[in-house]
Amino acid sequence: MSEIIYDFGSGRSNPETFPIAALQKAASDVIAREAEALNDYPGKLGFAPLREAMAQRESDREGVVVDPDHIVLTNGSMQAVTLCGEALAERGDSIIVEEYSYPGTLSAYRSLGLEMTGVKLTPDGMCLDTLTTELQRLQDSGKPAKFIYTISTYQNPTGFTMPKTRRLELINIARQFDVPVVEDNCYADVYYEGELQPALYALDDDPRQIYLCSLSKILAPGLRLGYFLAKPPMLDKLLARRHDAGSNTLAAAIVAEFYKDGVWTHTKFGNEALLKKRDQVLDGLDEHLADLCVWSKPEGGLFIWMRLPDDVDRKELWKRTQANGFAYLPGVAFHYRNADVPYLRLAFGHLTEQQIAEGLPVLARCIKESRTSNEAMVHNSLF
Amino acid sequence: MSEIIYDFGSGRSNPETFPIAALQKAASDVIAREAEALNDYPGKLGFAPLREAMAQRESDREGVVVDPDHIVLTNGSMQAVTLCGEALAERGDSIIVEEYSYPGTLSAYRSLGLEMTGVKLTPDGMCLDTLTTELQRLQDSGKPAKFIYTISTYQNPTGFTMPKTRRLELINIARQFDVPVVEDNCYADVYYEGELQPALYALDDDPRQIYLCSLSKILAPGLRLGYFLAKPPMLDKLLARRHDAGSNTLAAAIVAEFYKDGVWTHTKFGNEALLKKRDQVLDGLDEHLADLCVWSKPEGGLFIWMRLPDDVDRKELWKRTQANGFAYLPGVAFHYRNADVPYLRLAFGHLTEQQIAEGLPVLARCIKESRTSNEAMVHNSLF
Repeated sequence: MSEIIYDFGSGRSNPETFPIAALQKAASDVIAREAEALNDYPGKLGFAPLREAMAQRESDREGVVVDPDHIVLTNGSMQAVTLCGEALAERGDSIIVEEYSYPGTLSAYRSLGLEMTGVKLTPDGMCLDTLTTELQRLQDSGKPAKFIYTISTYQNPTGFTMPKTRRLELINIARQFDVPVVEDNCYADVYYEGELQPALYALDDDPRQIYLCSLSKILAPGLRLGYFLAKPPMLDKLLARRHDAGSNTLAAAIVAEFYKDGVWTHTKFGNEALLKKRDQVLDGLDEHLADLCVWSKPEGGLFIWMRLPDDVDRKELWKRTQANGFAYLPGVAFHYRNADVPYLRLAFGHLTEQQIAEGLPVLARCIKESRTSNEAMVHNSLF
Repeated sequence: MSEIIYDFGSGRSNPETFPIAALQKAASDVIAREAEALNDYPGKLGFAPLREAMAQRESDREGVVVDPDHIVLTNGSMQAVTLCGEALAERGDSIIVEEYSYPGTLSAYRSLGLEMTGVKLTPDGMCLDTLTTELQRLQDSGKPAKFIYTISTYQNPTGFTMPKTRRLELINIARQFDVPVVEDNCYADVYYEGELQPALYALDDDPRQIYLCSLSKILAPGLRLGYFLAKPPMLDKLLARRHDAGSNTLAAAIVAEFYKDGVWTHTKFGNEALLKKRDQVLDGLDEHLADLCVWSKPEGGLFIWMRLPDDVDRKELWKRTQANGFAYLPGVAFHYRNADVPYLRLAFGHLTEQQIAEGLPVLARCIKESRTSNEAMVHNSLF
């Protein structure tokens, strides 16, 4: 395996827009000012000023009042994902996920022994007819789903967003089956274009609602700052399962100071740079792969989901791309049952213009060289 | 409840020796230098330079070679405590703890549904005869202990340290019963006097060994930086249960930079200040409570364990101390079965000279006023 030069694999943030000087200043300020807090345990909710900043972020985006005491800081949103699995289900219990989902979540729930049912995706998010059928089937089998996990906006990996009308339907279905919905909204603020869709909690005050979000996508994943939003008693149920004595006060205080005037200025700045990369990738794909593949055109987020021709030998493709320094995540990594589906995900957030320009022809060549026929086999749609 | 003025309750670090200027400089350096790492996920082991610094810390203290790749950074040592419970045992399984132990650990293991057997403590640590009897009893009952959790140096809350000869015995007993030992060594580097005792891993290369340590006591708990040390396959077994995508790179990088010349200069500086506080508390107790109570004289750590006269109404004592602005943790918080034992723990690390000087007479007065008899009831020993 040669060195990876074109890393379209990992979902990192953009180092070009990482606010070094502002974070340096924030760090210097808070290490002196918050010495007392740094010498104490943060408590289960976490450093209050960052919870307040995140409540403001949520309020600004959703137009509803968010109580900072219903926000719990976590070690990345993955700690919140895991807590949901631990607090709401037992080994062997059934849960619902999208048929393609975030590998971190799938891996956590597999490790917890949860039995995942994957619901078909459409360009409007989870297929709600299938969801209803599956919830009914699980209920009838005596193993009702313990929760529904959904990435409803700029879904990872597909980039799809569920429209408001279908969100309302989802809420009704969940209520009808008395099942909590865990909405993972990590990507929502990586916005490029199109209509914004409200988070489920902004449409529904059902106390079973759990909402997850993160700073990994709008700032940096190395900060390991995520959060969940839930109301008591659900809040307490999740907290009861937490035993790490709270999240990092140092990172939280630095970031709270950085965001003291809100998250939006830096978020917009970051998104403008990301939009250019997205467009460069979409243009490059059009140029090099339009005759062979179809892919998503995400209105936000960091990922493009691509359908390969059926006649591509996917093991061969992996070998060829690795040998040519090109990395991606294969469809199998996202499938709830690890099925080797003919897809791949391209992450573009951290790549340079040059890496994108040079990398896509490498991918195109490898795909062509991995085909086992010469037939025209372009699909017209992603599914 | 009035405001707490004399907080002998929480085990915080000393804000007076918190190295503000050095951490500010470290933060400024690493935010620029490690921008690439901050924009990526840390991986399950965590930021390598801090693992290397902690391997050096361990090597220096124990005189054995420690592989940084056997060190895993965690969100405080509590995440490691929890991972051990999750990875080594299932709900309903038996484990062994000391009869008095760290409340965070007890709370985590209770929440995981582990059935704890508490082993009697002596001034030389866990009573090994009782340990053998209990391991045998559990084995005979068909529910053998899944692991032994021990704080072998400056035990929390008692301050006791297990001598080397007994550590070797403990290792033999554990081997005989084929049970892993989880050694929590969070307090070891808060050293005042006396002979240093080796960590179990330095005496034993049994691959079942798990060792936990932290920066909460020698630097600050708000950094949420702990670690565990384990060899494969035990290392992998614990990692398989971790799903938070790794520990905080920002905090880890700042602290690694701060410790680039080793942990000892700052640790000694901190310990000198803590030793003065310990002595002030011991002197104050001698002055105000010698006729009524006995307490530990710890050679390290942040806690003093005190035995109350049998005739103290402990509910009354709690009420009176709270009303007078004095906080402590009652014995019940440390007992593995929440038994309301006649003890309390005094934490002194973060208190000012004035708080100690003014607080201890308040405690003494409250204890005297909470007695239900006038008999001379001093115990001669802690147990």
